[in-house]
Amino acid sequence: MGGSTSAKISSHAKIGNNVRIGDFVIIHDNVEVGDNTIIESYCELGVSNALCDATPLMIGANSHIRSHSVIYASSQLGAGFVTGHRATIREKTIWGEGGQAGTLCDIQGHCSIGKYVRMHSNVHVGQLSRIKDFALIFPYVVLTNDPHPPSASLTGCVIDEFAVLCTMAVVLPGVHVGKDTLIGAGSIVNRDVPDQSIVVGNPGKVVGKVDRITFKNQPDKHVYPWRRHFHRGYPDHVIEEWKKEFPHG
Amino acid sequence: MGGSTSAKISSHAKIGNNVRIGDFVIIHDNVEVGDNTIIESYCELGVSNALCDATPLMIGANSHIRSHSVIYASSQLGAGFVTGHRATIREKTIWGEGGQAGTLCDIQGHCSIGKYVRMHSNVHVGQLSRIKDFALIFPYVVLTNDPHPPSASLTGCVIDEFAVLCTMAVVLPGVHVGKDTLIGAGSIVNRDVPDQSIVVGNPGKVVGKVDRITFKNQPDKHVYPWRRHFHRGYPDHVIEEWKKEFPHG
Amino acid sequence: MGGSTSAKISSHAKIGNNVRIGDFVIIHDNVEVGDNTIIESYCELGVSNALCDATPLMIGANSHIRSHSVIYASSQLGAGFVTGHRATIREKTIWGEGGQAGTLCDIQGHCSIGKYVRMHSNVHVGQLSRIKDFALIFPYVVLTNDPHPPSASLTGCVIDEFAVLCTMAVVLPGVHVGKDTLIGAGSIVNRDVPDQSIVVGNPGKVVGKVDRITFKNQPDKHVYPWRRHFHRGYPDHVIEEWKKEFPHG
Repeated sequence: MGGSTSAKISSHAKIGNNVRIGDFVIIHDNVEVGDNTIIESYCELGVSNALCDATPLMIGANSHIRSHSVIYASSQLGAGFVTGHRATIREKTIWGEGGQAGTLCDIQGHCSIGKYVRMHSNVHVGQLSRIKDFALIFPYVVLTNDPHPPSASLTGCVIDEFAVLCTMAVVLPGVHVGKDTLIGAGSIVNRDVPDQSIVVGNPGKVVGKVDRITFKNQPDKHVYPWRRHFHRGYPDHVIEEWKKEFPHG
Repeated sequence: MGGSTSAKISSHAKIGNNVRIGDFVIIHDNVEVGDNTIIESYCELGVSNALCDATPLMIGANSHIRSHSVIYASSQLGAGFVTGHRATIREKTIWGEGGQAGTLCDIQGHCSIGKYVRMHSNVHVGQLSRIKDFALIFPYVVLTNDPHPPSASLTGCVIDEFAVLCTMAVVLPGVHVGKDTLIGAGSIVNRDVPDQSIVVGNPGKVVGKVDRITFKNQPDKHVYPWRRHFHRGYPDHVIEEWKKEFPHG
Repeated sequence: MGGSTSAKISSHAKIGNNVRIGDFVIIHDNVEVGDNTIIESYCELGVSNALCDATPLMIGANSHIRSHSVIYASSQLGAGFVTGHRATIREKTIWGEGGQAGTLCDIQGHCSIGKYVRMHSNVHVGQLSRIKDFALIFPYVVLTNDPHPPSASLTGCVIDEFAVLCTMAVVLPGVHVGKDTLIGAGSIVNRDVPDQSIVVGNPGKVVGKVDRITFKNQPDKHVYPWRRHFHRGYPDHVIEEWKKEFPHG
């Protein structure tokens, strides 16, 4: 372990091998950090509140937590987890391997997020959200959860596999966004979206199926489902499956 | 006072009894913190600039300032004030008791905010805004102030009592949002909104009165005005008044 | 140089005269800070990653970097650069003199920004963006860059001189926003915008020319091009040029 002398690391925290810890980091008691992980400066790990239970914050091996991030106890982040700067991840966030929470992301906790779900900057995920494997969420998207604001009865959104939510889209409470969908920038999604649909506008409307979208400079090549052509950063065994599913790209 | 040895606390600051101060906190001279308040790690209190006057930053008793927050001098935050992480509150913000500024909120100062005004994450309040008691503001809402951008002549918005501004709504400069209104997610509010109206869309349009909205699973129960049924975190004497106003819920 | 004892400043960094450095600041090796600059608390300067080259972070003289900001190596910020709190500026951001990145701005790097380009709070600039001199960008605007999300082939936006992008506007990948344009709040700009046009709505539509806009209380006085009347904070030689261009205001 390479710790800075300015870091405040609880002797009860379980820190793996070859973990690098930056200046002014705080790590509380109830934290387990996997091997080969980088914790940058000014991060605070294992913050607890009345909604935490006894389970620790677990950060998988080979993760990279960028500076100024705050992550609560009672969350589990899979191997290879990456944050941008100033990510906030609250209690009871369960996130599979290969996750990414970009700069300024605000994950409100009590949510279930699959593997290889990647969020760009400044995504807000309300409590009770469920996001399935390989979904991609672009900047300033918000997943809401209160159908009668303000109320005490929350209903999370469900985002299915491979869905792409573009910049500044808002998903209204309890809405189910189907697999392989494309939600356009600035869409206000107020009803369930069938698989493979394109939604645009305020209010959001289904305007067609994703298979009609081709590359601007290659009009005979399909963009969606994006796993036909986009493989950067996914594991080999996953890419192999995708290549079998779409043998012609 | 329980101070961390890593905190930098001016000897001129007035810190109440039973205040807890986290690691790497900075508290400048011109700050008064009420009893039983929690100041989490990496906060900086009492930042001053040329727009501050001689009045201190005053934070009322029983407040909770979460980590990485920055609060300027010449602001007054009432008792029981709560922030999320990384809130920024600039000079000459006057906020009544029971206020809440969620994670990433950016209060630009020179504004007047009533009691029990609660803001969720990432709300931006432009200078000269006026927000009245019990208004509720959801994530990524922006209150703007420049009718001729860029200009030197700003006009703040006015948000009346009990108004609910949903996620990603933008209120244009000088617009007056009436009492008991509901501003839908993603609305661009470019004209005054009468009391008890519902606004949706870009541009925002009044589409009816809030009394037409009932609970999805209880179609005979009105949602608005929300004080009919939502009482969590408000003081008993206030709830009693609301129960008298709406004796049948 | 006035450094805090809690700051961690590399002996390889080149710090100019009369630079003030706040508490808990980190300055890495590959950084040059111009004279009379203020670096507030909790800032980290010169962060490097695999996309940096050997060029240092250069911050011009008379700059002011507010607290909690993170700025990477291999970027060049001109004289008089100002940030709000918690700005993030990644590698290979080239920004002319007189720049401003407000609180929470997230500049993703690999972009070229002219002189006196000012961004208010929480602006997100995608990689490969080009923003020309004197453009003004208001809160929560996003410049995107991926025409086929997710893809490996990015196309930045181009924002021309004096353009004004109002709150919560989104510019889609590769879109060219012309000189002296006004992009209304909440607009989703999905096609090129001719010079001096007004765009509003989702999807954004050109609704006229900016010369039709006059001050609300002075209906014979034109608002745009704004350099006719708004001069605050620009240098004298620039204002003189503008006065020649618009001798009657």
